[in-house]
Parts: sequence; structure tokens; C-alpha cells
Amino acid sequence: MQQPEVTLNHIGIATEAGNHQLEKLFKSLGITRGISESVPEQGVNVHFFSPVGEVPHLELLEVQDPEGTVSKFIQKRGAGIHHLSFQVGAGKLDSIIEKLKSEGFKFTYAEPKLGAQNMRINFIHPATAGGVLIELMEIQTKE
Amino acid sequence: MQQPEVTLNHIGIATEAGNHQLEKLFKSLGITRGISESVPEQGVNVHFFSPVGEVPHLELLEVQDPEGTVSKFIQKRGAGIHHLSFQVGAGKLDSIIEKLKSEGFKFTYAEPKLGAQNMRINFIHPATAGGVLIELMEIQTKE
Repeated sequence: MQQPEVTLNHIGIATEAGNHQLEKLFKSLGITRGISESVPEQGVNVHFFSPVGEVPHLELLEVQDPEGTVSKFIQKRGAGIHHLSFQVGAGKLDSIIEKLKSEGFKFTYAEPKLGAQNMRINFIHPATAGGVLIELMEIQTKE
Repeated sequence: MQQPEVTLNHIGIATEAGNHQLEKLFKSLGITRGISESVPEQGVNVHFFSPVGEVPHLELLEVQDPEGTVSKFIQKRGAGIHHLSFQVGAGKLDSIIEKLKSEGFKFTYAEPKLGAQNMRINFIHPATAGGVLIELMEIQTKE
């Protein structure tokens, strides 16, 4: 079988500060809670939950900054699923982005940035991916 | 470690008929394509892709019926991620739904219906789940 170049790492869900419906639901369903982390670049605290072994995680993006990108997403489209995140092999992100660009996919950042868990990330623009915001990420291999 | 009562089975993505951006992207990323199936109850053809071994799948919901529920979702919110689907143990769906109802979660159907792959399904209403449409499903154990 063909080996995918990517693994679905997590599903990001935009959540308003103080809305604990999903945390309560995941607890009721016995879904394991993992780490939490602050990601000021996106104006959120993130909380990871793992319903299928290692990956993918469910990543609750809890708004902290009303001017941040996730808050703006909620203002525009409502709270709910925000993005899918695929992890690529370490050192492969740049070449995969170049390949996808050559095929017509657009990216939101000119160059990858650092995201949660210190990963190098970039996002495929939803306008070129059926309306889905898709993150590509890799473990950072150099400082 | 606590054993979850559920497994994340798939992520449903609402796609307009004739928009092949995601199929093209998944192919570029080496993600395995699985079966396709018609689900007239939702007015869609569904196409499964598997980026992480067995589950979860990515389920493209390709609109066939402009009056169907998925088409209406796209008209209201745009194409993109539509729902998360958790599979529960066979025979456990009704008791899990009763438990969640007692905790305040609302469901879209009064009784489970049959969905894709002949699963018994019901949906937790997004208004009680942080804006996320969450499907619960089980393998049908009786005719």
C-alpha cells in the first residue's frame, strides 16, 4: 500500500472563552485529556484531547484575545471546527509546500511560522482546498 | 489509562458537486482513497479517504441534491468541515444517547436513523456542543 506523506495530527476546534460544552462532552465519552498550552500568536489557549490512541488529537482553541485570528473566525463563521492539521516528515515541509504551490494551492504565510508545540507550520488557504483550512506542520529540526 | 467509550471514526467535509480541490490535495499528499457510496437521505455521494491507518477517515460529502441537508449547510455556512463522527460499541448507542440527554445534550433525531455504511446514527445538536455537529454511530446489530 502507498505510504502517505502525511499523518492527520489534529482537528482544531474554535471555542469561545467560558464555553465548556465540548470539554464536558469529551469527559462523558471517556476521551482522554492531554496537555494545555498558551499560543499567543493565535490569541488562544489550546487543550488537547485524544480519542484514538496517539493521533489525531482534538485541539480546543479557546479564545483569549478578542482581536486574534481564532476570535475573528468565530465572529465570521461561528464557533466550531476550525482546521485540520497534517504532520509531514521532519525536514520535508518546505519541499511539500513548493510542490503544492506548483499545483495551484495557496498558503496563508509566505514562510512557515512557529505554532503550538514549537512546530513549523503553514496553512493551505481554504479558497484552494474546498473551504477547509488545512495546516501542514513539521517538527523543527534547526534553531 | 481510561478506555474511551468511543472512537473517532471520520471527519465529514461538505463539498459542492464538481469541486475536486480536496480530492486533488489528498492525492498529492499520498492519502489512500477508499470506497464511495450514495447516501440519498443526506442528498450526497460520500467518498472516504484514510490518512492514518484504519481510522479516522476523511469523508467527502459531495452534494447531489440541492435540497438535501448537506446542500443547505453549504448555503448557510459555506463548504468545509461538516461534522465529527464517533463510533460507539455495538448495542451501546441508545444508552449513551440517554446518558448524554440526561446531561443536557440535545439530539437532532428523536430516534437513531440509518446512515452511510448502514450504521445506526444520531447527531448531537451543535447548539449544545460548542457549535460542532457530532455524529454518534454504531454497527447495526438487529434487522
